[in-house]
Amino acid sequence: MTTRSPGESPESALLLSTQCELAVSPVRAESQRMRPLQDLYPDDFAHCYGCGRLNAHGLHVKSEWHAGEAVARFRPAEYQVALPGFVYGGLIASLFDCHAMATAAAASMEATGAKPGIDPTPRFVTASLQVDFLRPTPLGPELLLRGRATEVGERKVLIEATLFAADAACARARVVAVRMPATMDQATR
Amino acid sequence: MTTRSPGESPESALLLSTQCELAVSPVRAESQRMRPLQDLYPDDFAHCYGCGRLNAHGLHVKSEWHAGEAVARFRPAEYQVALPGFVYGGLIASLFDCHAMATAAAASMEATGAKPGIDPTPRFVTASLQVDFLRPTPLGPELLLRGRATEVGERKVLIEATLFAADAACARARVVAVRMPATMDQATR
Repeated sequence: MTTRSPGESPESALLLSTQCELAVSPVRAESQRMRPLQDLYPDDFAHCYGCGRLNAHGLHVKSEWHAGEAVARFRPAEYQVALPGFVYGGLIASLFDCHAMATAAAASMEATGAKPGIDPTPRFVTASLQVDFLRPTPLGPELLLRGRATEVGERKVLIEATLFAADAACARARVVAVRMPATMDQATR
Repeated sequence: MTTRSPGESPESALLLSTQCELAVSPVRAESQRMRPLQDLYPDDFAHCYGCGRLNAHGLHVKSEWHAGEAVARFRPAEYQVALPGFVYGGLIASLFDCHAMATAAAASMEATGAKPGIDPTPRFVTASLQVDFLRPTPLGPELLLRGRATEVGERKVLIEATLFAADAACARARVVAVRMPATMDQATR
């Protein structure tokens, strides 16, 4: 038997529930609008093999921005191995590459008041990529990438990122990202 | 009109030519037997996405050993781009990864008197991979990779490699390779 206050009926409980939903709906709508950073690259720069939404053959890495950190999840195909049972290091480097560029873009957006995941994502390119393979990455579990900016300049952003498989850190990356030079932009015209 | 020594006939010229072929045939056969280093990985370790001959979906990087240097050539597909017209950095990291492991194996073989490209290639794995992107790599020309060992230990080999497109150095890598640990070997049993 449940206790009920005077005047409270199942209908009023339903009404209360509906009111609560209405009360939180603007927040939920805002959160629903948050999109992967790579999906907000301008069309001209959305062909990256690693993360471009317009590349039909690509890996489609998608990084989401949560409170100063970029998070991506990726499940390798069974043929993306180095040795049987272990994920290919070149794929791991590729995931870090695209994830770090998105992280750099988001950190750079926040520094100028833009909203990562809502406003268009500016395109950064990789100046250097350092990957330390801490242990063999098992094939099977979904991989989790987490990345943060450690330094945000106007042109250059430094990124540190970690790749986890089943909660174990398997690889770490330090990446230097630079804002896409005009020479690469012109190549698409 | 051609001059001919006494006793020389078209038949004797043919005989001489045949004798010459026989005389050089051992050298030619030796040179023909030189194979890409990755084609001599043991079957159990020939499934790498980057360079395994038994991976039907892979990149099939093939590195050849010439006088202390490993050389590979690769032509990216049109969809392996970062931005339109420029090769994807993750692909470049992948090429360096596989090329460096082959370079490490060959250097290690030479240090112990084995013949790279003829004897079975031992399998190394990547401990760390540092890629500096010197300039955007144009899509179109065949890419050339050259790699050398700078330090050859019993377990660890350091590699430096450069990637060229149309004679311009576009990226440079420093790679730490280690002999495949027994734990990864056991995974295939």
